Amino acid sequence: MAERSTIRHKLYKIIFEAETPAGKAFDVLLLVLILSSVVVVSLESVVSLRRQFLPVFQVLEWTFTIIFTLEYFLRIYTTPKPLKYVFSFFGIVDLLAIIPTYLSLFILGSQYLLVVRVLRLLRVARIFKLTRFINEGQVLTKALRASFTKIAVFLGTVLLLIVIIGSLMYIIEGAASGFTSIPTSIYWTVVTLTTVGYGDIAPQSALGQVLASVVMIMGYGIIAVPTGIVTVEMSRSDKKIAPTRVCPNCHREGHFEDASFCYNCGYKFEEFVKPTS
Amino acid sequence: MAERSTIRHKLYKIIFEAETPAGKAFDVLLLVLILSSVVVVSLESVVSLRRQFLPVFQVLEWTFTIIFTLEYFLRIYTTPKPLKYVFSFFGIVDLLAIIPTYLSLFILGSQYLLVVRVLRLLRVARIFKLTRFINEGQVLTKALRASFTKIAVFLGTVLLLIVIIGSLMYIIEGAASGFTSIPTSIYWTVVTLTTVGYGDIAPQSALGQVLASVVMIMGYGIIAVPTGIVTVEMSRSDKKIAPTRVCPNCHREGHFEDASFCYNCGYKFEEFVKPTS
Amino acid sequence: MAERSTIRHKLYKIIFEAETPAGKAFDVLLLVLILSSVVVVSLESVVSLRRQFLPVFQVLEWTFTIIFTLEYFLRIYTTPKPLKYVFSFFGIVDLLAIIPTYLSLFILGSQYLLVVRVLRLLRVARIFKLTRFINEGQVLTKALRASFTKIAVFLGTVLLLIVIIGSLMYIIEGAASGFTSIPTSIYWTVVTLTTVGYGDIAPQSALGQVLASVVMIMGYGIIAVPTGIVTVEMSRSDKKIAPTRVCPNCHREGHFEDASFCYNCGYKFEEFVKPTS
Amino acid sequence: MAERSTIRHKLYKIIFEAETPAGKAFDVLLLVLILSSVVVVSLESVVSLRRQFLPVFQVLEWTFTIIFTLEYFLRIYTTPKPLKYVFSFFGIVDLLAIIPTYLSLFILGSQYLLVVRVLRLLRVARIFKLTRFINEGQVLTKALRASFTKIAVFLGTVLLLIVIIGSLMYIIEGAASGFTSIPTSIYWTVVTLTTVGYGDIAPQSALGQVLASVVMIMGYGIIAVPTGIVTVEMSRSDKKIAPTRVCPNCHREGHFEDASFCYNCGYKFEEFVKPTS
Repeated sequence: MAERSTIRHKLYKIIFEAETPAGKAFDVLLLVLILSSVVVVSLESVVSLRRQFLPVFQVLEWTFTIIFTLEYFLRIYTTPKPLKYVFSFFGIVDLLAIIPTYLSLFILGSQYLLVVRVLRLLRVARIFKLTRFINEGQVLTKALRASFTKIAVFLGTVLLLIVIIGSLMYIIEGAASGFTSIPTSIYWTVVTLTTVGYGDIAPQSALGQVLASVVMIMGYGIIAVPTGIVTVEMSRSDKKIAPTRVCPNCHREGHFEDASFCYNCGYKFEEFVKPTS
Repeated sequence: MAERSTIRHKLYKIIFEAETPAGKAFDVLLLVLILSSVVVVSLESVVSLRRQFLPVFQVLEWTFTIIFTLEYFLRIYTTPKPLKYVFSFFGIVDLLAIIPTYLSLFILGSQYLLVVRVLRLLRVARIFKLTRFINEGQVLTKALRASFTKIAVFLGTVLLLIVIIGSLMYIIEGAASGFTSIPTSIYWTVVTLTTVGYGDIAPQSALGQVLASVVMIMGYGIIAVPTGIVTVEMSRSDKKIAPTRVCPNCHREGHFEDASFCYNCGYKFEEFVKPTS
Repeated sequence: MAERSTIRHKLYKIIFEAETPAGKAFDVLLLVLILSSVVVVSLESVVSLRRQFLPVFQVLEWTFTIIFTLEYFLRIYTTPKPLKYVFSFFGIVDLLAIIPTYLSLFILGSQYLLVVRVLRLLRVARIFKLTRFINEGQVLTKALRASFTKIAVFLGTVLLLIVIIGSLMYIIEGAASGFTSIPTSIYWTVVTLTTVGYGDIAPQSALGQVLASVVMIMGYGIIAVPTGIVTVEMSRSDKKIAPTRVCPNCHREGHFEDASFCYNCGYKFEEFVKPTS
Repeated sequence: MAERSTIRHKLYKIIFEAETPAGKAFDVLLLVLILSSVVVVSLESVVSLRRQFLPVFQVLEWTFTIIFTLEYFLRIYTTPKPLKYVFSFFGIVDLLAIIPTYLSLFILGSQYLLVVRVLRLLRVARIFKLTRFINEGQVLTKALRASFTKIAVFLGTVLLLIVIIGSLMYIIEGAASGFTSIPTSIYWTVVTLTTVGYGDIAPQSALGQVLASVVMIMGYGIIAVPTGIVTVEMSRSDKKIAPTRVCPNCHREGHFEDASFCYNCGYKFEEFVKPTS
């Protein structure tokens, strides 16, 4: 019994963690399997290739599916809280990664199921969760979350602009030059403001081109705003020292933002110049 | 009388403010109404949909209009200064939001009136005015206003470049490859410098392509300038402390920009070292 | 005599400077004239308009030219050093602004001469020279000059990349899909790396599209480099205080970068922590 | 003997270094030769030019090749460690720069060999290695290396997004509107997210255009992230002071990164708090 549970614990350490060499090896193997399975799925979508190598694809697909199925059940078996895992985000993703292949037996040639398997990519996230990258990731996400409201305001204003400009272009250009409806014009405005510029729809009239130019220069310029926001946020989440904070007792400067005692003379700060955040 | 005025005041608090739960609910409802009305307007502009669902659109449109009309008159009724409201920016927007539908009774099928209704979106701004977003918005606008002159200089130089390059391309490429006139060439230059790149007009001659490449790399590079401006401005408008400001009495530095007393010795500032800008 | 010279001096103050109200008025008038003359030139290039309004254009053109000619000679007359002005940058630009129209009398229908007149725009620079914008402009140019070498290195590397990638695409795609020669492929690479993306040339082969994707993501990413350079440069040219600089005598921090005495106790700095620049 | 070795040493100083005037001159000459040889190679790829000037191209090509061959052997002769040079990066590049021309004698009309010669451009890197640009280059590369993990996380997430969105678009749009396979859809997603926007493939369905708009705005926004990363990294790699470094003896902070003694109390650092990266 005890021995069995130890095996289970060992497996748990291998499958769910990445401290042990075996755990690392497992993660690398899993990463390779996931990526190659996604490659197979996308190659399978190429008609010419599908015609030629259908059997190969099917064999590979089933191999991946069986391996992932085994892994899935191993995870359920080894984890102390099976239910919690099954209904966790990654539990559901793991299930989505294997179900489509089985379903494809009953629902034939379902292209949609094919593509669901691409979601296997999300499983890569778990692996990264276990690596040093996560710290960096946290720094990024922290910075982005901190600047969320600012970016929301910015996006809101931009969307408002897009709708109004789109409607204007609809009036100015009209169906003749491809601005067949307000939604289409809005689509064009997005394409232009983001400097993507497909060219499938382009203004023909002089006035339309003038307005378009304004939109482009606008879009070219306002990209500066989110960049500024994120940069400032990052540089803040980055520096931990408040250069303006001075100990009233020993006048030593450069205390940490969260310091409550002077690191030099141990003086207790009653009030201090908090660095704005 | 008094009671009536209290009702009026209550309504005012609900319609114009967002402190009370009722006020918040009203804002959310209004937001939903505005957005969905704009959605209706834009869907109505899709020919195929208009053909099919014209009656539906009309019913919806009139419902929105009547609700907004009621709201408009309620605003006039509840506000202490009706005239001031009517001629305020939002007062006019509110009117523009309802008039077109009524006019459409007399001026039939006027596409332009249709689109004016999109301006209802501007009313969203008012709602945001009442939310926490406004602070962030102020930070952004403050930063942008502060960097206005710099950006103006930048834009001026860019526009000057655009016109001169445009004229050059007009000479080099000529009407044959779509550069039919200087305005058209200028339009092409904007499209290229902003990296939008429709491709409706593209240089054919070797020399033209060389110049085009220069323009692209230029446009690719100078985007750095507005970004730098805004970022620096933001990071400054971000910290509220004036590091250069020193109390003439106790020489303590790092006072708040808007401080009028030294936080250390309480000395009243007559003159102070303005933070460099 | 003396009186005459005073008139001359007054005119000088009006034409060359902008301190006096008259000087300001003159600048505004000149700005309007320059811009509208450029507008006329570009409208004249539109074939349809030229056909219709040729006489109008000619009248306007001659009016502008005569005014600018008068201004040119007034400048020569009023300036204390006529020759120095004539051979100065703006002196030459002023000449270029009027010559083409006169030449067009002898060399008929010369489109090139037409366009040279667009260079009148350069004269706008002089007017800005006299305004508050110049300071901002100096900040910008200073920052850009400071980061010149960095940007040169960056551009050099990018150009090297562009040529090599271009040649690669020429091999991979070949003439069939529009990559008719290495120069053309290089042109395509510029169009793609700068995210302009005309679409007049686009990779067809799988390998070509893979490489193209790499180029795009590269171009999308490396824009961060010049932006970073400029931003850092600007933020430096922006702050004049060295927060890390501490007086060894009184431990007061936050001295100016170029200070050689402590602003607090007057202590002479022998060695100090120089902020890197 | 000794005299001969001195000649050899002199040549070494000229060819491999750039301190002496002769060395500088050699570098400039080499730079000109490399660039012009690359220009010749690319012009030769233009069919029309090749037809007309084939003999000229061949003469030039052979001249360059012979000069580079001489240079190559001179490098082998003068360097103290010939083998080490031959198998060094630049040694191989130097060989690649001359081999193709000789091979073209046996393998006729090999377009590929033609292009290999473009790799001569890499030799330019060596010359820059000897100039002041290298320092700037190091600053850039240092900043980029420092922010590598952050950028890797960012790129990883973006690529994951691209694959998933690509697959989605494949389902939504399908082969009809050019999204013939998942790889193609992924290619389209890259083209759109990076705001390149060729327009060779563009969504037709309403839903597709909505998703496309989301992708564009996303791509337009997330460019802020790498920019932010690099900017912050640069501004840090810019100041040479380690704010987190504290003397274990006197607790004075803000030492230079390369300091081995405390500038305050002269305490010798055994270990020190590395600046966070």
